[in-house]
Amino acid sequence: MTRTVLSSATSEVVIGFDEPFVMIGERINPTGRKLLTAEMKKGDYSRVEKDTLAQVAAGAQMLDVNAGIPLADEPKILAETIQLVQSLTDAPLSIDSSIIEALEAGLAVYQGKALVNSTTAEEEVMERVLPLVKKYNAAVVAISNDETGISENPDERFEIAKLIVERAADHGIKREDVVVDPLVMPIGAVNSAGRDVFHLVRRLRTELKVNTTCGASNVGFGLPNRHAINNSFLPMVAQAGMTSAILNPLHDGLVPAIKAGDVLNGVDPNCAEWIKAYREPTPEGEGRGGRRRGRRRG
Amino acid sequence: MTRTVLSSATSEVVIGFDEPFVMIGERINPTGRKLLTAEMKKGDYSRVEKDTLAQVAAGAQMLDVNAGIPLADEPKILAETIQLVQSLTDAPLSIDSSIIEALEAGLAVYQGKALVNSTTAEEEVMERVLPLVKKYNAAVVAISNDETGISENPDERFEIAKLIVERAADHGIKREDVVVDPLVMPIGAVNSAGRDVFHLVRRLRTELKVNTTCGASNVGFGLPNRHAINNSFLPMVAQAGMTSAILNPLHDGLVPAIKAGDVLNGVDPNCAEWIKAYREPTPEGEGRGGRRRGRRRG
Repeated sequence: MTRTVLSSATSEVVIGFDEPFVMIGERINPTGRKLLTAEMKKGDYSRVEKDTLAQVAAGAQMLDVNAGIPLADEPKILAETIQLVQSLTDAPLSIDSSIIEALEAGLAVYQGKALVNSTTAEEEVMERVLPLVKKYNAAVVAISNDETGISENPDERFEIAKLIVERAADHGIKREDVVVDPLVMPIGAVNSAGRDVFHLVRRLRTELKVNTTCGASNVGFGLPNRHAINNSFLPMVAQAGMTSAILNPLHDGLVPAIKAGDVLNGVDPNCAEWIKAYREPTPEGEGRGGRRRGRRRG
Repeated sequence: MTRTVLSSATSEVVIGFDEPFVMIGERINPTGRKLLTAEMKKGDYSRVEKDTLAQVAAGAQMLDVNAGIPLADEPKILAETIQLVQSLTDAPLSIDSSIIEALEAGLAVYQGKALVNSTTAEEEVMERVLPLVKKYNAAVVAISNDETGISENPDERFEIAKLIVERAADHGIKREDVVVDPLVMPIGAVNSAGRDVFHLVRRLRTELKVNTTCGASNVGFGLPNRHAINNSFLPMVAQAGMTSAILNPLHDGLVPAIKAGDVLNGVDPNCAEWIKAYREPTPEGEGRGGRRRGRRRG
C-alpha cells in the first residue's frame, strides 16, 4: 500500500493505491499562454491568482506550478509564484521546471513537502535533481525516458522507471516518494498508446509498487472532441492502477469522470464524496436533511 | 480471439475482443414505462418505432427487444415487435424474455442470427433455453446466477458462468455463442461492485475466453448524477475486457464515452470511427458533404 504524502504548511494530500485519485491542476503554466507569460514576466500574478482559486474550487487537490518563460529570471518568478499560491490555498504543490536553479529556488521558499516535477533517467538530470529532492525532503516525478529518448516499448519504459527508483534509493529517497510518469503518447499518433499505458501502469503498480502520474491533457491531441477522449482516459487509466494526474480540472466533465472512477474503483467509501459533490439541492432546508438521511445507505 | 457474430437479414455485427464495443439499445422494453406498456398491449407500436430509430441514430449497433407486459399475450406482442423493428433497421436484435414461449415466438419470426436474452445457470432455465438457442442457431446471454441467487463472490460467479458455457457445449452451442453477463450490482449498495466486475470480466476474458455483456444502467442506481457514474463505468469495464453492454444510447455523454474507450483500447484503428463521428463541420457546403459521405459506413 504505497502512500506518497505531500503537504503544505497546514494540509496533507496522500497519493496512494487505496486513496481517491489525486488531480494536480496544470493551469499555472505560461507555456503556450501569451498573456500569462507577459504578465508573469513583469511580476503581475493576477491571472495566477485566478487560476489557483478556480482549480481548487473545481476539485484539484494539488496544483502544479511552472514559470518556464524564455529569457526571464525563472528562479525568481517561480519562487514568487509559489509564495503567492501558498498564500491563497493550502493545497500542496508540484514544483515544475527543467532548470535546476528554479527547482531549488522554489523548494527553498516552499512550505511543506513538495512534489518535484521532474527527473528523467538521463544521468545528468538524475544527478542534479535527486540530491535536491533529498535535501528538501520532497517527492519526485520520475519520467520514464533516458538519453535515447522515449521507448515505444512499454516494458522498456518499465525498466527505465525501475532504474530511477533504484537511483533515488541510492540518494536516500524512498520508493514511495518516487511517482512514476509512464509517458502517455497522443492516441491519434500512436494507436496503441492507451493499451501501452494501461499495461505499463499495471506493472508499475503490481511489480514496482510505485504511485503513478501523467500529463493527461495530451492523449487526445490532434483529434476532434478531444476532451471526451480525456474524460474516458482518466477513469480507464485509474482502473488500470494510476493514482494521480496533472490535468485541467476546469475541462467540462473531467472532474465528475474522475470522481465516478473513484466510486467504481472502491476508493470512495459509501460513495460519500460523490454524494457530497452531486447531491441535488432541494428547495426546503428541512427536505435536504430528510433526503440526506434517506440516501445515507445508498 | 473470440467473435460472436450476430446478424439481421442484411447486416452483421461482431462482438469480439478486437472489435469496437457493441452497444445494445435497451429502450424497447415496457418495464417501468406505463405509456409504452398500454400502447404495446393494444397493438400500438408507434413508440417502439421512435425508440428503434432514435437508438440506431444515436449509435446502437444492436437493439434489445422486450415485451414483458403482465397479463398480455407476450409471445404474440414480442413477435410483432420484432417484425416491426426488423422492418425499420438492419441492426441485429437481442430477444429478451423470461417466458420460453415468447422467446420461441420471437425466434420463429426473426430474420438472421439473434442474441437470446437470457439463460441463467438454473437447471430448469438452461434446459429450456439452450435447446431453443441451438434449434434457431442463435447466441445466448448467460447470466451468472443459479438457484441459490447471485453470489457476492466474483470467483463463484466465474464458476457459474463456466458451468453455463459447458452446458451450452453439451447442447452443441459453441463457446463464442455464449455471451456472459457477470452481473453488475448497484455501486451505492455494494461498494466493491466495480472492482468485483472488473476482476470477473478480466477472468472471463483471459481464462474462459468468452465475450461479456451487462445491463449497464443500474450501476449508479440510487446515487445523484447517476449518468456520470455510467459514463465512467462503461470505458472502465471495457478496459477490463468487456465487449458489449445493454444500455441507453440516448443518455447524455454515454456514446462518446464508449467510443473514446474504443479509441483508447486500440479497437478503433487510426481513430477512424472517432474522427468520422466527431469531426467538426466546416462552414463550406463542400466540407459538409465530405462529412456525410464519411458517415455513411458508420
